[in-house]
Amino acid sequence: MSHSAHESVVYLDHAATTPMVPAAVEALTAHLLDVGNPSSLHASGRRARRVVEESRETIAQALNCRPGEVVFTAGGTEADNLALKGIYWARQAADPRRTRILVTAIEHHAVLDPVFWLGEDEGAHVDLVPVDRDGRVDVDALRALIEQDPDTVALLSVMWANNEVGTVQPIDEVVALASSHGIPVHTDAVQAVGTVPIDFAASGVDALTLTGHKLGGPYGVGALVVRRELEVTALVHGGGQERDIRSGTIDTPAIAGFAAAVELAVKHQAEHATRVSALRDRLVAGVLAAVPDAVVNGDLTHRLPGNAHLSFPGCEGDSLLMLLDARGIECSTGSACSAGVPQPSHVLLAMGRADDEARSSLRFSLGHTSTEADVQALVEAIGPCVERARAASR
Amino acid sequence: MSHSAHESVVYLDHAATTPMVPAAVEALTAHLLDVGNPSSLHASGRRARRVVEESRETIAQALNCRPGEVVFTAGGTEADNLALKGIYWARQAADPRRTRILVTAIEHHAVLDPVFWLGEDEGAHVDLVPVDRDGRVDVDALRALIEQDPDTVALLSVMWANNEVGTVQPIDEVVALASSHGIPVHTDAVQAVGTVPIDFAASGVDALTLTGHKLGGPYGVGALVVRRELEVTALVHGGGQERDIRSGTIDTPAIAGFAAAVELAVKHQAEHATRVSALRDRLVAGVLAAVPDAVVNGDLTHRLPGNAHLSFPGCEGDSLLMLLDARGIECSTGSACSAGVPQPSHVLLAMGRADDEARSSLRFSLGHTSTEADVQALVEAIGPCVERARAASR
Repeated sequence: MSHSAHESVVYLDHAATTPMVPAAVEALTAHLLDVGNPSSLHASGRRARRVVEESRETIAQALNCRPGEVVFTAGGTEADNLALKGIYWARQAADPRRTRILVTAIEHHAVLDPVFWLGEDEGAHVDLVPVDRDGRVDVDALRALIEQDPDTVALLSVMWANNEVGTVQPIDEVVALASSHGIPVHTDAVQAVGTVPIDFAASGVDALTLTGHKLGGPYGVGALVVRRELEVTALVHGGGQERDIRSGTIDTPAIAGFAAAVELAVKHQAEHATRVSALRDRLVAGVLAAVPDAVVNGDLTHRLPGNAHLSFPGCEGDSLLMLLDARGIECSTGSACSAGVPQPSHVLLAMGRADDEARSSLRFSLGHTSTEADVQALVEAIGPCVERARAASR
Repeated sequence: MSHSAHESVVYLDHAATTPMVPAAVEALTAHLLDVGNPSSLHASGRRARRVVEESRETIAQALNCRPGEVVFTAGGTEADNLALKGIYWARQAADPRRTRILVTAIEHHAVLDPVFWLGEDEGAHVDLVPVDRDGRVDVDALRALIEQDPDTVALLSVMWANNEVGTVQPIDEVVALASSHGIPVHTDAVQAVGTVPIDFAASGVDALTLTGHKLGGPYGVGALVVRRELEVTALVHGGGQERDIRSGTIDTPAIAGFAAAVELAVKHQAEHATRVSALRDRLVAGVLAAVPDAVVNGDLTHRLPGNAHLSFPGCEGDSLLMLLDARGIECSTGSACSAGVPQPSHVLLAMGRADDEARSSLRFSLGHTSTEADVQALVEAIGPCVERARAASR
């Protein structure tokens, strides 16, 4: 196994992807040379199947769901697509009046884009639920939208925590509201598992997305946890794996690595959150000391421990990102950049920011490998970089 | 890296999954600890992106397509679903008269099941193209089906080679026929890449499915090779990766392992085919010597090199499989088994076999780790096992 020799990099982009933890690497590589498709009937197949089912139980225990509720997918985006399209199609088939999909305006593209597609090509009506200036869903607005005509709502999707500004959503309130009308709730918890406490059964949500590479597991594997009672139309049809909801050969080594990472992340969640939020607070304080007019975005109370999201007035976020990158400091604008044209973040726009405010922002996200030295390096570099970026955009 | 210590197993199920080749293991593990999402703008992200794009070029060179035509997916089933649904939806949007989908009756479930779903839930009309007793597509029947009303055909899907009986299809004839009517052709080449010669550009097909774990690469990664000119609606929406056809975080390590395996499999295809078909021929001759009334299924000329598919009159395939498994010999019935109820193979039924003939069959599939000793072990075991299975079903 060759390590990449880039030890000097200050990696502050754990929300984009975080390195695999050793336990996950071990679990994955332990099964890389195993022979046997878990769907095969012979001994090698049954042995692979056992690894998959033990992994499923590990994840179920970590999230407090039943093993049969864990549906493995190729990652968070596929799990979100399966939830949105699969629940929509099934609810539509059961009652054609159910054409409305309610999602917050700050969902990840993996939620928004399937929903917009359902709106454009499959006859759905999409209602975007507004958020406040801190990125918390407006529960009163959600209530009003539901009560317009509860029987026409196919489903509701509210992310557990926002990937850009780190705001944690009031899932309890959302679930209470939706369940009083019998509306199923999906939540994208890709950023939340392992960073905030999550109990699937207690939360009352009907479907929850998680993914490996955001919590120390491998790429290419994730899961939709979905209550057994909820009907979900398959997105990928075929051999009938995963309760016939998600066909395709089961990726035993990745699933073993994923389960090891989930177990560890959930077990260490509290101490991880304490350590990383302390680092994050020092990062924010240090950056504000160096750049006093920087603005912290997102909810200061209900927030992911590793997230720091700041606007730097007078800067282009992309330029600032590149200036920091030149000094070996890696972060994110938190915004989609298509074909080289920087787009202002839909999350910040939904939070009431102007285009130029949105475009002047950077996300620093901390994770299990983050250190005091990483924070120090950023704090030292940010002042000069902001000055340069401001000069460049004048 | 721990090896599984089951050296004594005689693995004759390479068509279900074949062990990873060392080059693929090396390429995957070399990038397992890399940090950086290939969609990130910083140096680590760009480095990961480079690995992905080099892998794409490797695969393009091996299959003779353009790098931009390789769309990475989580595997063959997803690639098939993307092809069938994505091309259907796009062709429908361009011309609503295009409601017909033509597929052979012996396609893999990863093709048939999405097509049946399109028929049941999305308004498609499904025409199953018949095959002859050897499992070769009936080109005259296909012509007649097309010429009923060519303008209503959305797409045509004909597998390159059948996964159960190993019959290689006359793709040239199929393409010539379809292209004279401007109908796009998809082919599931999951069993064919690395075992028979494939040249994407020369073949004239518009879309081709391949997957990692059937050719010495990892699970959880595959590709749809799709002509740039062909419109394909996304199956998984989100961040816009892979030409906006397949969103989701790109799985750098798996893609690197996949590319290494494709390169090697294609490079060694001819010698592999020679070696493995010689073993297969000895296997068939030995089994027929031990069980003279066994019947070889599939086309004897147009056939995958590693495939041997036989019916054992008077046996239940499942019982025979288990008896062989008890002796450490692993093979497949080649038929779907749902909830413990053995179903006769839809492939053999389409080839005109009766239920009991179909249910009496086993597939032995050879691959890169297969040896003369594997063949010998089967030849020695098959006689007594068939006798036992016959006694059991009397």
